[in-house]
This record gives sequence, C-alpha cells and structure tokens, in this order.
Amino acid sequence: MNHIPSSHPRAKSLYIREKLVDAFDAGLVAKEGLMAHGRGEAFDYLIGEKTSKSAKKAILAAAFMLKQAQNPVISVNGNIAGLCPKEIVQLAKVSGAKIEVNLFYATKARRQNIFRVLKKNGASKIYGMDKKNSTKLSGLDSARRIVDKDGIYSADVIVVPLEDGDRTLALKKAGKKVITFDLNPMSRTAETADITIVDNVVRAITLLIKSCKNPKKTKFDNSKNLALAIQEIKTNLTRRARNAQIS
Amino acid sequence: MNHIPSSHPRAKSLYIREKLVDAFDAGLVAKEGLMAHGRGEAFDYLIGEKTSKSAKKAILAAAFMLKQAQNPVISVNGNIAGLCPKEIVQLAKVSGAKIEVNLFYATKARRQNIFRVLKKNGASKIYGMDKKNSTKLSGLDSARRIVDKDGIYSADVIVVPLEDGDRTLALKKAGKKVITFDLNPMSRTAETADITIVDNVVRAITLLIKSCKNPKKTKFDNSKNLALAIQEIKTNLTRRARNAQIS
Repeated sequence: MNHIPSSHPRAKSLYIREKLVDAFDAGLVAKEGLMAHGRGEAFDYLIGEKTSKSAKKAILAAAFMLKQAQNPVISVNGNIAGLCPKEIVQLAKVSGAKIEVNLFYATKARRQNIFRVLKKNGASKIYGMDKKNSTKLSGLDSARRIVDKDGIYSADVIVVPLEDGDRTLALKKAGKKVITFDLNPMSRTAETADITIVDNVVRAITLLIKSCKNPKKTKFDNSKNLALAIQEIKTNLTRRARNAQIS
Repeated sequence: MNHIPSSHPRAKSLYIREKLVDAFDAGLVAKEGLMAHGRGEAFDYLIGEKTSKSAKKAILAAAFMLKQAQNPVISVNGNIAGLCPKEIVQLAKVSGAKIEVNLFYATKARRQNIFRVLKKNGASKIYGMDKKNSTKLSGLDSARRIVDKDGIYSADVIVVPLEDGDRTLALKKAGKKVITFDLNPMSRTAETADITIVDNVVRAITLLIKSCKNPKKTKFDNSKNLALAIQEIKTNLTRRARNAQIS
C-alpha cells in the first residue's frame, strides 16, 4: 500500500486506484488492466463521476433484457473481479445469469485467482474453467475466443463489462445480444453492443441489480442513447471550462 | 511481451502500451504509472491523437521560456523515462537544462533504474540522486517534496512532464516558472502551470526540441490556450459523434 496524502483533492479516486493495485498484487488484474482502468478514470472524470441520465436509461433497458433472456451469461475479467466481485455474484443471482471467466491476457494463475475471489464472494458454478468444455468463437484471434460450451457459447444474452471491441463484434456475429459497461461512448464496443451503459461499473452494477428486482419494459435505442452520452460529456466540458476561467 | 492481434484497429496504441509495460517490467514505471498512462491515452484519443493548434502554440512559448531561463531543470519520473529517455537528454542538451529524477512513488531501486536508462541514453550529470544534497519543498507531503539543492530547488524554470497538481502548486509557490505536458486541459497542473502543453509527450517533446533550436518570442496566455484546448476536444467529440451515427 502506498502513501496517499489525505490532502490530495482526488484522494477518493486514488483510493479506488489502490483497490485495483491491490487486485493486481493479488494476481487478478493484468498490467494492461491497470492502464485500462486509467482510461476509464479519464472518461469517468469527463462524465462528472456520477451516473448520467443516459446511463440510467441503459440500465433500465439492460435489466429488462437480462430478465427476458433464456440463458444469460456474465463474462468476468480481472478488473471487474477486482473491483466488484460481490456485485457480480449478486447480479448473477438476481438475473438468473451464469458467470464465466474470460480473459484477454489469459494465464492459468490469473484465471484461478479470479475463480477463487468469485467463490469467496458466494458464486456457485463458474464457467470457463474447464478446458475440456471449451470451444472457439470465430472471428477472434485473441485468447478471448475460447469460451465455455455451456456458458457464453450457448448463451442468448451476454453481459460484458469492460470489453474490447473485437470481442463484442464476434459475439454479435455469433447471434448474441450484448450488454456492456463502457465509459467511452465512442468505442467500438459501445457502438456494437445492443445496450451500452456509459458509467463506472462500480456505480452502475448496483443500480442494475436493483432494476433486475423490478424490471420494466422501456423504449431504448442504443445509437441515440450514445449520442446523448456524448452530449453529456460536451455539457460537462463546457461547465468545467467555465469553472476553469473563474478559479 | 503479450500477443497483440495485428488485426486490432488500435494496434498502434497497444504497442505504445506495451512499451510502458516493458518499462514497468524493467523497474522504471510504478503500477500507478500504468494507470496514469491509461488516463493519458483516453485524453489523447479525445484530442484526436495528433498535436493540436493549441499545443503547437504552447510548445513555441515553452521553447522561448526555456532558452531565456538562467537555470532550467527537467524533472523526470518513471513514465517519461520509459517513454522517451533519449528525447529527455536531447531536450536537456539543446536547452541547457539540468536533469533531475523526482518520483511520487519513490523507491531507491526505481530511482537507480531511471538513472541507468538516462545515462545509457547519453545524460551527463543527473540530479536528485544524492541524499546529502537534498532539501524539501514546502507545501507538499508526498515523496516529491524532496528535491536537489543544485537542481529543482535553485532552478528558475522547471519542465515537469506528467505531473500531479500538488507539486505544480508547490513549485509555483516556491517562485518557479513551470512548463508541463498534460493531456488533460482541465487538471490542476494544467491550470496552475505557466505553460501547459496539452499533447502526448511522445509527440510534443520532439517538437519542443526542434523549437529550442530556433526559439521565437510569442504572445501566450495559458488560460486562453487551455480554453482553446477544451474547445478542440469538443469539436472532436462532435465529429466523432457524427461518424458514430454514420457507421
């Protein structure tokens, strides 16, 4: 644990960073995952570090889609396991979704460490752990193409928090419905998914769990909602630029 | 080295990431430095991954200030040493600036690793390595308060690439002129510095070296230039939002 001066005005953000650093030290998070977290921090800063109107709309739509699904799966990587393992298990329970570990920078040790953390937080069955039961998604050349036959491969709806664009596209091509959390409303993942929640997953997942308990059908257009999310960032930039002039 | 699929549309960005991961593995970069790089990547994406008009103005002003300085110092941390050690040494030579190693997450090993890389890239004297010659900047409670008496402490102009807000403020309070590279035009560092170059340091430092060879006096107002940088991001967001609608 490093020393964070409590006088630092972004101490809260630094503490979350340290949580991810701890998860890195525990062998859950890849080095590239630390950088990905940094990218997320920057976009979170731009959306004002709060759940926006567009994010709330996407969360409602996601809850309804999850509850309507026949065979939903939550795809878990190191960062999400490091940041909110308990919430992943809660979301799986409340939505009836399976949990599958799926890694971009895959090592056996990291897979096992993530497995253990999920188990510790109450997960029952975890998919993606048995090589004998794995198969490949076409159109992908990273380790993420390897999926569980009884998990992602046969799912109809997949929740992919903190995803890369290639994989989202491959999942779409395989006929899946995709729900993603992505703080960058302009990313390929954001544009390819059926429902993109442009919010910090730490905040949004709690709201998604709540909404799953009381799902409601809503009108939702992902492209329009992403345009709204970009507009929200622009409004924030204008506000910040004005404040900068004053201070 | 991890496997980066060459088909990945952001492969170039991934390769730069890997450069920083290599610097991390070589003991130059802190874990927090990996996250900081990620934040930079996000802002670089927003400015369009090219040197903007506002950045070019700031670079010209910075070159003139550096060449006018009596005792300029370049403050070096792990990320900058990992990304462009050769350019740091070139900038020091062309501007007559000293080089000082100054770390937020300070360890003796990391300091030594950075020292070696700078030496390997042609640096002559490197400040900040001798404890006996160190003193403290007031108004700071991180490790960065420890500075070299003959380096930052007695400098008139300091180049602080990839800086934190507290330190920039402490340097300003100590009567220094501060030039910084910061991809976030709204950060405290950006707002506190005398000249903020809102650009990826990998691109901007080469331009700064060039400008130092032919310095020109220019009119420069940092607040106005930051407002311009924010406007440039907004313009990019509008363009991207439009493209997103088409694709």
